[in-house]
Amino acid sequence: MTQEAAGTEEGSGAPAMASRRRLLRTGVVAGGAMLAASARAASPPDDPMWSRTLGPGVADRPYGQPSQYEKDAIRRYVPWLTQSTQSDVSFTPLQDQPGILTANGFFYERYHSGRPSVDPAQHRLLIHGLVDRPLLLSMDQLQRFPSVARIHFLECAANGGPEWPAAQLNSLQFTHGMVGCAEWVGVPLSTLLGEVGVKKEGKWVLVEGADGAHMDRSLPIEKCLDDCLVVWGQNGEALRPEQGFPLRLIVPGWQGNVSVKWLRRIEVGATPWYTREETGKYTELLPSGKALGFTWVNEAKSVLTFPCPEKPLTSGAGFYELRGLAWSGRGKIRQVDVSTDGGVSYTRAALQEPVLTKALTRFTLPWRWDGKPVLLQSRATDETGYVQPGIAELRKVMGTGSVYLNNSIQTWQVLADGSVNNVQLS
Amino acid sequence: MTQEAAGTEEGSGAPAMASRRRLLRTGVVAGGAMLAASARAASPPDDPMWSRTLGPGVADRPYGQPSQYEKDAIRRYVPWLTQSTQSDVSFTPLQDQPGILTANGFFYERYHSGRPSVDPAQHRLLIHGLVDRPLLLSMDQLQRFPSVARIHFLECAANGGPEWPAAQLNSLQFTHGMVGCAEWVGVPLSTLLGEVGVKKEGKWVLVEGADGAHMDRSLPIEKCLDDCLVVWGQNGEALRPEQGFPLRLIVPGWQGNVSVKWLRRIEVGATPWYTREETGKYTELLPSGKALGFTWVNEAKSVLTFPCPEKPLTSGAGFYELRGLAWSGRGKIRQVDVSTDGGVSYTRAALQEPVLTKALTRFTLPWRWDGKPVLLQSRATDETGYVQPGIAELRKVMGTGSVYLNNSIQTWQVLADGSVNNVQLS
Repeated sequence: MTQEAAGTEEGSGAPAMASRRRLLRTGVVAGGAMLAASARAASPPDDPMWSRTLGPGVADRPYGQPSQYEKDAIRRYVPWLTQSTQSDVSFTPLQDQPGILTANGFFYERYHSGRPSVDPAQHRLLIHGLVDRPLLLSMDQLQRFPSVARIHFLECAANGGPEWPAAQLNSLQFTHGMVGCAEWVGVPLSTLLGEVGVKKEGKWVLVEGADGAHMDRSLPIEKCLDDCLVVWGQNGEALRPEQGFPLRLIVPGWQGNVSVKWLRRIEVGATPWYTREETGKYTELLPSGKALGFTWVNEAKSVLTFPCPEKPLTSGAGFYELRGLAWSGRGKIRQVDVSTDGGVSYTRAALQEPVLTKALTRFTLPWRWDGKPVLLQSRATDETGYVQPGIAELRKVMGTGSVYLNNSIQTWQVLADGSVNNVQLS
Repeated sequence: MTQEAAGTEEGSGAPAMASRRRLLRTGVVAGGAMLAASARAASPPDDPMWSRTLGPGVADRPYGQPSQYEKDAIRRYVPWLTQSTQSDVSFTPLQDQPGILTANGFFYERYHSGRPSVDPAQHRLLIHGLVDRPLLLSMDQLQRFPSVARIHFLECAANGGPEWPAAQLNSLQFTHGMVGCAEWVGVPLSTLLGEVGVKKEGKWVLVEGADGAHMDRSLPIEKCLDDCLVVWGQNGEALRPEQGFPLRLIVPGWQGNVSVKWLRRIEVGATPWYTREETGKYTELLPSGKALGFTWVNEAKSVLTFPCPEKPLTSGAGFYELRGLAWSGRGKIRQVDVSTDGGVSYTRAALQEPVLTKALTRFTLPWRWDGKPVLLQSRATDETGYVQPGIAELRKVMGTGSVYLNNSIQTWQVLADGSVNNVQLS
């Protein structure tokens, strides 16, 4: 947890080389492993205070809270990124996320007119336009439709945006923290569209939020009928206010802004609406002067979450487990390869089961650090065969003026003292 | 959300019969569905306040919180259940859990000496006894071992205990809320036992907590080498204090008390320790006067979470989706059957994918309520072929004096007004 803790053991106490070499070789730990003598002990330490006293009972926290020792595990924002905290983003502390799910308290926020507090008793969803039978639904009515629960990631189109020109934010939280993953529960959008009856000319769908920004985006009908969800549940409870309480859209695998929050209106039309959010924003200006529009998919991406700038190697040379997350808006992650020499050579990482479609996927690789500087990378390949590109490769297409769609390979530079830096290789 | 909300629609607005009959028949909604005319509308309601104003920005809640409208979605305790809130249980609000995961803020609490606040920098795990190389590990050292993430349920042995003599608590939260499900992240116990080297005579393992109760239980070495985990992560963040922060054991599929929290000691021995918690408590006194001991497994169980006493049918006759959760300590759920006539006939429910081993499994069944009183039940079958028993069947073996192991079929009585009661059929 801290260097201080390791210090009390009179040495690093890390699992020693001999054991870890065998682990690397066999992938399992059998008997007879060797460990640094300093971690050997035959008796427990003296009872600390909490082992000799009564704690508080079950009455004081009807809704649970994290430990007081976890106060640094929080979302953070970058003061210079936008002009107002009401049209801003706070980043997921990925360095504190142990598995594929993002705690609701950690899940990144992005909104354009602040975080509204919507009364679910008053909230309505209108479905209209090129439909046979328009609908105005209360939450009660909506929740009577057949529902599903699915685990998917959400990633902002601008995740990694500040890194386009150069590596600058020395932080996993800020380079990759506009992503999260949750179990979403709600009604398939296809069910609702079936209920209203889409006319033959209906090829596009406008989705609109109830916040002050009235955030709205156009979506092709094919995606709406495929896997989109209108959800009220997230990771075991109702949506949080910043995630669209009481109702949001989930467009699996597509950039976060189209998963409109505080969803209040779905209109079926014949053509896209070309709203401000898909013309003035969320487009990519190319070096040629032309701009890409309707670039929806989060292409395959990965990053090592341990080590990272916030979680350096604190115990010197020896065994560590490299850990990371990978995801693809096209489906499942097929493989992740990890390099410790800046991309010269790669080793296949283990993927944590279950590997779910359009969800964060956890990967691990046992590793023995020799204590010298290294360049760590991970590279994801998804089930379509798409391989996560390097930043140089991406810049050939996108230039350096982009804000969106940076899914490049991340390089962490580990120095001899165990500290970790965000660098880019030419 | 509330009856009031539906009321503003000038009628129930529920999806009408014709549509739902087709849904029941085909399982999908195609075009041309019929809906009550009252829910039809062509224009949105007037903008509410939150659509005309700015909300707060990203700076005020670095750790997220639920909506102010969700203040009734909380854990609750039964004042008469134990003599002190420090040796008590608070129940998961299952009626507010939309999917298979239990929000960390909802996850039931059970402890014997209050909720300790353990400093992770001072916490140590001792592994000793019949081993070749005893170990004393800091959290830092422990977190360097190869780790896994797995989704498993936890259920207290006493879940449903008050219902042994008769149905009495008219609440899903209190009849079934000593269960939860989370993604746990940590080190396989087999890895740690491999590291210390278990001697040939080592057949049992004592696990002990750092709380004031020093909660301890004996476990057979086979289970420890199978699927037990020593975890620090839960649903995307560190363990909560009431869940054992910074370190707990997870014994998948076995009653919650053996998944010792605030884990500080693992001792390998030749025989069980017969601790207070496995002799005076957590045993089952049979009508014969003999008691069962070391009854570890949570056998297959299920319950309808909608409707339930807390979530009645508020919109009158018509279409509803019956929803519930099933689980088994023996592995995966194979099927769930739902009855609307008190167990005379059953219909197979749909299971939500992915169905994970020793995890909560979500099931659903489309249903048209005719507005008359009904008796709803669900019955789980796991992959071993074990079928969840009725309460009468269970009492033939266990009598009515038991506290633990009540995995019987739950009956919800729905009255004509839509209210739901906890009843038992003879």
